[in-house]
Amino acid sequence: MLKSHVTAFAPASVSNVACGFDIMGFALSGLGDRVTIRHDAQPGLRIGARDGNPPSMPVDPELNTAGPPVREVAKWYGHRGGLVIEINKGLPIGSGIGSSAASAVAAAVAADALLGGRMSKTELLACAIEGEKIASGSVHADNLAPALWGGFTLIRGYDPPDVIPLRCPRPLWCALILPDVEIRTKESRGLLPASLPLSDVIAQTGNAAGLVAGLMNGDYGLIGRSLQDRIAEPVRRHLIPAYGEMKAAALVAGALGCNISGSGPAVFALCADEVIATRVVRAMSLALEAAQCRHQTMISRVDGTGAHILE
Amino acid sequence: MLKSHVTAFAPASVSNVACGFDIMGFALSGLGDRVTIRHDAQPGLRIGARDGNPPSMPVDPELNTAGPPVREVAKWYGHRGGLVIEINKGLPIGSGIGSSAASAVAAAVAADALLGGRMSKTELLACAIEGEKIASGSVHADNLAPALWGGFTLIRGYDPPDVIPLRCPRPLWCALILPDVEIRTKESRGLLPASLPLSDVIAQTGNAAGLVAGLMNGDYGLIGRSLQDRIAEPVRRHLIPAYGEMKAAALVAGALGCNISGSGPAVFALCADEVIATRVVRAMSLALEAAQCRHQTMISRVDGTGAHILE
Repeated sequence: MLKSHVTAFAPASVSNVACGFDIMGFALSGLGDRVTIRHDAQPGLRIGARDGNPPSMPVDPELNTAGPPVREVAKWYGHRGGLVIEINKGLPIGSGIGSSAASAVAAAVAADALLGGRMSKTELLACAIEGEKIASGSVHADNLAPALWGGFTLIRGYDPPDVIPLRCPRPLWCALILPDVEIRTKESRGLLPASLPLSDVIAQTGNAAGLVAGLMNGDYGLIGRSLQDRIAEPVRRHLIPAYGEMKAAALVAGALGCNISGSGPAVFALCADEVIATRVVRAMSLALEAAQCRHQTMISRVDGTGAHILE
Repeated sequence: MLKSHVTAFAPASVSNVACGFDIMGFALSGLGDRVTIRHDAQPGLRIGARDGNPPSMPVDPELNTAGPPVREVAKWYGHRGGLVIEINKGLPIGSGIGSSAASAVAAAVAADALLGGRMSKTELLACAIEGEKIASGSVHADNLAPALWGGFTLIRGYDPPDVIPLRCPRPLWCALILPDVEIRTKESRGLLPASLPLSDVIAQTGNAAGLVAGLMNGDYGLIGRSLQDRIAEPVRRHLIPAYGEMKAAALVAGALGCNISGSGPAVFALCADEVIATRVVRAMSLALEAAQCRHQTMISRVDGTGAHILE
């Protein structure tokens, strides 16, 4: 029987992950966006009305990150009928935890399931990338890949996209702080250095390689030592209130490492277990309160599931 | 019973390994240097006479890479007696397969065994680094670590040296070409760019992270895709006759990847098995013969043992 509609969920994600600038990300448990794709008598693509979404969410399908992925999936299937995209945003927009990627991935996964369910994750990624271009102005997939695959993912390169899931044999928890300040991904990218001194390149590659080895070996110490960044943190930390104080508080409270999530303003701290993550997020929150900055806090296990169909 | 002398062996090694510039290396089976450390009535440190060594090998212990490691090991034990260092070089000097590192490591390992055998690999590495400084003019350990630990090693960083052995569950073979041209490590380092464009940094970190994941998963395809370099190969390839032709021949003959070993002129190609490595080294050799460049060829399994005591 042909379905009239499909709903998919895709999780929030932390990208960059310190030394993994533009190449690594991990998915968060429980938090995410839901997207329903529905057959429609009216041809073409449109965003359906849905209460509760933030007013800043674009309703033009070519300006919403969920639009191009559905267009691309429909193209893959040669589907000519109309489709309605209903978005139920669980994630705040522009917070640095992969909100646009979650919508793009959920949309691609739902559209694929509605039209036949025959696409591979790599094919879905290629469609979802078309949505992410709207948000960031460039091709990157370090939120898309973890939202699709779940867990920790490495994107080795883009020609073609080469995604490697990195399975950690020990649990990982994430403490998250979402400061109530706005940072646009495009602006945040403008701060990045055009080039990096060779000594910093060697340090960055050493830490990226170390993080992969630490994750695959379940070596918490190595994971912690590797969570350093020479590219984005030095220039972006100044956009986040009390960043240095939050990071110091997280490390003192037992986090393995702490850094900027995506292009910020969210800040993540990786932790070995839930008790530590709870203590860490409280310590970070206190540091931000001292700077009188409003914020949300959350803790989440690093998710191993990724995007999936809900109904 | 106190020993009068100890002999240690340390293997040749390939450093840089394309994307692993300054952070990765692997040891080769069978090829290497032997160093004997002998108690001596005459105080201080000296290099003992040994036939068959290349005339370019320095006999002043402060100018030979084996000297400072022995001095540092003696200091660690508080040893005040005289020591003679007898070097039996199995590796050509300045060829790019870790000749100076093999002598430094074998010297440190032999001196430790002679004086008590209580030092850790990390402590021995710190001593061996003092020898490598003579050869390269800077602190690096991407030949020392594989010579000490064996197999593939990652040096995440230097403060303090953080060595991570990377065990590949599938066999790896190495085809090696040693062209008969001289490249000095110090000069070769002078060619390196002072900085790298951000897009190249991202590609380099992606490939370094990909190589670690490929090795640990035993994923030959991923190892091959990751063996790319944006730092040294673009500037150093011109120092090696017929480099492009050799690399193309190696890949056509079935190598996973091919790049410059250390700072050259040696060229390595990683291969899945001995049959392929034999075919690959022949293809590379033909390419170099066409350029009328004299050279040595060898194939070797990536060694899993590292430095060890011989007697």
